[in-house]
Amino acid sequence: MFSQTTEYALRAMSWLALSPTQLVPTNQLAERTKVPPHYLAKVLQQLAAADLIVGRRGVRGGYKLTRPAADISLLTVVRAVATVERITTCPLGLDNHGPNLCPLHRRIDDAAKMLIELYGGVTLQDLVSQSERKPLCDKETTARLTVSAGRR
Amino acid sequence: MFSQTTEYALRAMSWLALSPTQLVPTNQLAERTKVPPHYLAKVLQQLAAADLIVGRRGVRGGYKLTRPAADISLLTVVRAVATVERITTCPLGLDNHGPNLCPLHRRIDDAAKMLIELYGGVTLQDLVSQSERKPLCDKETTARLTVSAGRR
Repeated sequence: MFSQTTEYALRAMSWLALSPTQLVPTNQLAERTKVPPHYLAKVLQQLAAADLIVGRRGVRGGYKLTRPAADISLLTVVRAVATVERITTCPLGLDNHGPNLCPLHRRIDDAAKMLIELYGGVTLQDLVSQSERKPLCDKETTARLTVSAGRR
Repeated sequence: MFSQTTEYALRAMSWLALSPTQLVPTNQLAERTKVPPHYLAKVLQQLAAADLIVGRRGVRGGYKLTRPAADISLLTVVRAVATVERITTCPLGLDNHGPNLCPLHRRIDDAAKMLIELYGGVTLQDLVSQSERKPLCDKETTARLTVSAGRR
């Protein structure tokens, strides 16, 4: 469905949402999201450029979210690395189309509308607040996260 | 919403669906779909590899659909150049997930499900059979296509 980059961006942001208050080391992020480190570095740069994460680049670097997970929708994450916009005028620039899209671009716009509605209403917090199953986590990690959250 | 390649594939197939019985010259296809010729050549190769079009490559080449436009869904076109599949097992290979997706991959699967439903039920014929507005066409082209169809 999504490009590799989009999938990786969603994975990285989901993992960061599990530890919202601390810098997560980049190597841990790569390991847990199972994203190749060099690819992940590029994705993290894009997420930082979109002001979704802040941190330090490099081998000893790490990142955290710039704002609460409840304030970051999945749509915001996708848009940091891909274009998801409604089509408001003919992409071919045909004069007599203008905002009256042809049947093809109407359908492409339908898909954009659908994704915007679906992902605009779900936040990273929604993903991580389910009690039993955490994104990207095996049983052991989930248990550790639950204990850690309990200690706060 | 879609990659450039996917958008171009949909444009090319829509244009071919307007002239289903004849080879459309590649240069006309590039002009009407406003796709750069070299990029279009690659997209056409992918569509031919997926057995959706048949024809001749090269400067004097041309293509036509391999089957009626009513038998080709938009989903089929998108899948010729991109991966749109339901997620049936954890992409990270986490043992205890298996088919029980985590909240992140459940949401990614939701998007795939939605697109499959939306595009699986619309054919190229649906796009070109609207009487007043043809995909990718300005007024002049639509008039010409209408006259041509009337003559058959």
